[in-house]
Amino acid sequence: MTRIVKNPNPTLADVGEQAVITAIVAHAPSTRNGDDAAVLDHAAPNSRTVITTDTLVEGRHFRRDWSHPAEIGRKAITQNFADVEAMGARPIAALLALSAPGDTPLEFVADLARGINERVTDYDAELVGGDVTDNDRITIAVTGIGQLGGSLPPLRLDQARPGQILVASGHIGYSAAGYALLKEFGRTGVPAEFDPMLRAHCSTILTPGRGFVARSAGVTAMTDNSDGLVHDLYVMAKKSAVTINLDSAALQPDDLLVRAAELVGADPWEFILSGGEDHTLIGTTFGPPPTGFVEIGTVVRHNSMGAVTLDRAAPPYTYGWESY
Amino acid sequence: MTRIVKNPNPTLADVGEQAVITAIVAHAPSTRNGDDAAVLDHAAPNSRTVITTDTLVEGRHFRRDWSHPAEIGRKAITQNFADVEAMGARPIAALLALSAPGDTPLEFVADLARGINERVTDYDAELVGGDVTDNDRITIAVTGIGQLGGSLPPLRLDQARPGQILVASGHIGYSAAGYALLKEFGRTGVPAEFDPMLRAHCSTILTPGRGFVARSAGVTAMTDNSDGLVHDLYVMAKKSAVTINLDSAALQPDDLLVRAAELVGADPWEFILSGGEDHTLIGTTFGPPPTGFVEIGTVVRHNSMGAVTLDRAAPPYTYGWESY
Repeated sequence: MTRIVKNPNPTLADVGEQAVITAIVAHAPSTRNGDDAAVLDHAAPNSRTVITTDTLVEGRHFRRDWSHPAEIGRKAITQNFADVEAMGARPIAALLALSAPGDTPLEFVADLARGINERVTDYDAELVGGDVTDNDRITIAVTGIGQLGGSLPPLRLDQARPGQILVASGHIGYSAAGYALLKEFGRTGVPAEFDPMLRAHCSTILTPGRGFVARSAGVTAMTDNSDGLVHDLYVMAKKSAVTINLDSAALQPDDLLVRAAELVGADPWEFILSGGEDHTLIGTTFGPPPTGFVEIGTVVRHNSMGAVTLDRAAPPYTYGWESY
Repeated sequence: MTRIVKNPNPTLADVGEQAVITAIVAHAPSTRNGDDAAVLDHAAPNSRTVITTDTLVEGRHFRRDWSHPAEIGRKAITQNFADVEAMGARPIAALLALSAPGDTPLEFVADLARGINERVTDYDAELVGGDVTDNDRITIAVTGIGQLGGSLPPLRLDQARPGQILVASGHIGYSAAGYALLKEFGRTGVPAEFDPMLRAHCSTILTPGRGFVARSAGVTAMTDNSDGLVHDLYVMAKKSAVTINLDSAALQPDDLLVRAAELVGADPWEFILSGGEDHTLIGTTFGPPPTGFVEIGTVVRHNSMGAVTLDRAAPPYTYGWESY
C-alpha cells in the first residue's frame, strides 16, 4: 500500500505499521528479529530460561514532559532486566509489545527503540522481537528473558533464612526523590545538582551483572526494589516466613537526598522506605556482601506471618505502589 | 491496606491490585508463578527457547459484546502459540501483561484467566507470570514461550524453496466470515449454523502440536495466517525470494462459507485470501503433507522480489491487516 507522507514529523498513522516496525528494527537491530518468533540458543549445560514481563503506561508510569523517549526505553528494559537479575540470571533478550495512538510521532518510537537498544547493549542482550498496534495511550509491555547457567538454584523470594545479612546494590530512594522533584518543578525547573535523582527516576541505572554475581557469591533470596523497600521486603519476608530487620544507620540518607527532601517538604525516609522504582537489587546471604553490595540489615528470626522492621521497631512508612 | 467491598460484582479498583493478581493465579495456577521472574528448565539436549509477543486491545482486536472473556483469553494464547508453532516449536509457557481501567469487572479478569488456562492446558503449558496495571482500554499483551528440541533448524520464513508444495493445517477464512457475521448481526443475531465461524473468530481453535509435527516431517518454512493469507505468504515469498502459487481448487470455500458470504453480501474468496486471524499454520515441504495438513499450492520459482499468485495469476484480494 502506498502512502504519501508530506509531514516532516510524521505520526504512526502517517507512515503505517510496517514503517513503525522498520524504525524500531533500525534503532534496535537483531538478526533474531523478523520471523514469527525469535530463537535463543542455550550454550551452557544445565541452563534454564528466566522470563518476566512489565508494562509502562503513559500518564501512569511515565510522562512525556518529564522523560525523553530514550529514557523511557531504557527504563522499560531496566525494570524487566532487574527482575531477571533478581533471580540471579543474566539478561539475554527482550521483546517489545508497543501499543500507541496513531497520532504518536514516529520520532517518539524511534527514540524509544534507541533507548531500548542502549540499555540491552549495556547487558550484552538484544531486542529480538515484538508487536505494534493501535491503542488510546502509549503502552509499553516489555518481556525480559535471561539465562540461568550452572547448577545453583535461582534466587527465589522464599529463600531468606534467619542469621543471614541483607545486602543491596544500587541507590535506594533516589528515584522517589526524582519523582517528587519532577512533580514540584517539572523537568526544566529542577536544580541541576539533583540530576542523579532525575536520572534514577527517568531512566533507572543499574550495574549489569550484579544478580549473577550475587548468586555466584552465596546469596539465596533476592528481589528488586520496585514497589517500595518495605513493601517488597515484606513480600520476601512473608514467602520466606521470616522477620527482616533494616538497619537505619546503613540506610541513612546522603546530603543530596536530605536537600531534595527539604526542597519538596518531604521526609527523606519516606523516599527510602516506600519510594520504590529504583530497582535496587536486595538479597540475603550467610556470607559477606558480594562485590558491589552493602549490608543494610539482617534476617533476624523465623516468623510465619512475615514482617519487616527498622531497628527492630515498626517502620514509619510501609505502603508501596499499587496499580488500583 | 484494608478495603471494604460491598459490590457483589466488584471492579478492579474495588478490590485492588493484589486481589486482581490473586484472581488470575487462582484461575491459571502455576508453581513457577509468583517470584520476580519464572524459571523454565530445558530437558532436551540442544534445546532452544522460542519467544514471541502479541497484543489484543479492546475495540481493536476484540469487543466484549461479541466475545466472552474466556474466549478472549483463549484467543490471546492461541495467536501467540501459533507463532511459536510456526517455528516448529512446542509451546511451554505464557506471560500475561494485562492493563485495564479500574472500572473493569473483576469477573472479566477471572474469566479471561480461566480462558487462558484452558488454552495453555490444551498445550500442556502454563501461565507462569505477568503484570497488572491501570490503562484506559483493556490491553492484553501475551508472551508465548516455546521449546525447540533436537538438531533440526527452526522453521523460518526464508526457507521456502522452488519445487516444494505448500501445506496448511486449519480452516482458512472462517475467522473472517465470523467477523463479518458479527458486524452484521451481533453475537446473538447470528444464525446457529454459523457457530463454527463465531468460534473461529472469537476463540480461535488450533490443534496443538501441528508445528512440531511439521518440522519433524520435513517442512522447512512456516508461518501462521494472522494478517491475511496472501499478505502473510507474500512476507514468506519475499524473505525466501520465491513465487508461491495458491491452488484455487484446494482452497475452494465449503458450503457454510458460501452461505455466510451470501448472508453478508460478500465474496467468500475475500474471506479466504485476505481475512487472516484464523492462525492456520502454512508451510512448505519437498515431502508429502505432514499429518493434519493438506496441500494448498506450490512454490513455483525463484523470484528475488517475492510474489504470491492464485492459479498462476494475480489474486483478486491481496490486502491484509494493518494496525495504522
